Amino acid sequence: MANIRPIQFPGEPLEKWLAQFMPHVSIDCVVFGFHGADLQLLLLKWKGADTWTLPGGFLGHRQSVDDAAHGVLQARTGLRRVHLRQFHAFGDLGRKEANGRRLFRKNLRDAPRRDLWLFQRVVSIGYYALVDIRKVRPTADAWTDSCAWYPAGSHPPLAYDHDRIVEGAWEALRAAIDVPGAGASLLPERFTMPELQCLHEAILGRRLDRRNFQKRMLERGGIERLQERRTGGAHRAPYLYRFTVPHAGLDF
Amino acid sequence: MANIRPIQFPGEPLEKWLAQFMPHVSIDCVVFGFHGADLQLLLLKWKGADTWTLPGGFLGHRQSVDDAAHGVLQARTGLRRVHLRQFHAFGDLGRKEANGRRLFRKNLRDAPRRDLWLFQRVVSIGYYALVDIRKVRPTADAWTDSCAWYPAGSHPPLAYDHDRIVEGAWEALRAAIDVPGAGASLLPERFTMPELQCLHEAILGRRLDRRNFQKRMLERGGIERLQERRTGGAHRAPYLYRFTVPHAGLDF
Repeated sequence: MANIRPIQFPGEPLEKWLAQFMPHVSIDCVVFGFHGADLQLLLLKWKGADTWTLPGGFLGHRQSVDDAAHGVLQARTGLRRVHLRQFHAFGDLGRKEANGRRLFRKNLRDAPRRDLWLFQRVVSIGYYALVDIRKVRPTADAWTDSCAWYPAGSHPPLAYDHDRIVEGAWEALRAAIDVPGAGASLLPERFTMPELQCLHEAILGRRLDRRNFQKRMLERGGIERLQERRTGGAHRAPYLYRFTVPHAGLDF
Repeated sequence: MANIRPIQFPGEPLEKWLAQFMPHVSIDCVVFGFHGADLQLLLLKWKGADTWTLPGGFLGHRQSVDDAAHGVLQARTGLRRVHLRQFHAFGDLGRKEANGRRLFRKNLRDAPRRDLWLFQRVVSIGYYALVDIRKVRPTADAWTDSCAWYPAGSHPPLAYDHDRIVEGAWEALRAAIDVPGAGASLLPERFTMPELQCLHEAILGRRLDRRNFQKRMLERGGIERLQERRTGGAHRAPYLYRFTVPHAGLDF
């Protein structure tokens, strides 16, 4: 059974709290949000510092890496049952030492031992998700002042190597949307071509030509035009489409 | 500068040898080999045991994860300057404990302490590569009886979760070949359509229809037909093609 017990703020000595985790491995979650406009990014602002980071945490001894990712995301942001995809492990030298130590210490009551693995290099396993912004309610945890959405294309600079992690996640997301049926959970069951184009534009971060987009979507298959049209708008009623391919497991 | 110092067989106590590595993180390399036939897989046979594994090792304290992957591959197989791509981190519970401990102990002179991280869970970061079999000469290291190619579709069962790691790598390779220009380093600069098809069939592990394959390759672009034909064969001289897209960084 999945073990996604959230990580609690230490009410105990740091050493004892750390003992629940497998040393040197962390998880960082890149959560993109969408609802009919530009792509958003879920960021945490550290308590008492003007520093933003991704929701991250550690791997419990009795958790699989996938379970730990869900546990970390839930503990740090309140988000549950999100489809997380692992995309890359980040393990460059010096990836979090300098300002990481300073930041972490700010949030501790007592000065910790300097030889803890927490203050050495940690390899972070990156996960990403794409969620419907209307369906989630991000909530800050005890380590953070706020947990909120920022435009993915112009978010505040992030601590550690988190800007690079976001870049990697966005690249993986761009590749993932290029599969027939991808993104179904973010669209109405019967959607218009402009709605599909809007999703693709948000993920790709650029405008697309309407005619080329429609041509490409229809040519690659996995989508069908329905007899009915969407009515009620100010313009000519647009055609409705639906995906004809299963997207279970591939979708966000 | 890249630090890919190979891991040496311990001529010292295990604890001291282990101290050079960051605990709980390992690297496993899935090396596929190709030359005009079915895809091959590079496997190690453990010394004194009928057990096959992937070439793997640990992450030095002063190595980036990417450098460690190159160092591990070189130390375990002799292969150098191979284009390795990270594809997934494997961290399920119990992924290597049971037979891993037994195997490892067989190769040690003294009984080690039971509480070493080596005998606990390790998260393994998977890398894969596709090489031209003619251009490399795999060499067994001190831990192994042999380092040799096996058909990727029918190799001996592997220890730990290495069968799953191979599966993940192969899936990543299949996706990677589906990009215009991919595989250029495994083909002559000017290649025939049957040569390109042979590469794709080896990677996909199935036969492809000749006409559909050619049509698809030409439609998706990134390739051009040259005026000249390949001469000297028994059959009608086939057309030659070349890639027109850069493949640096994307290729194997």
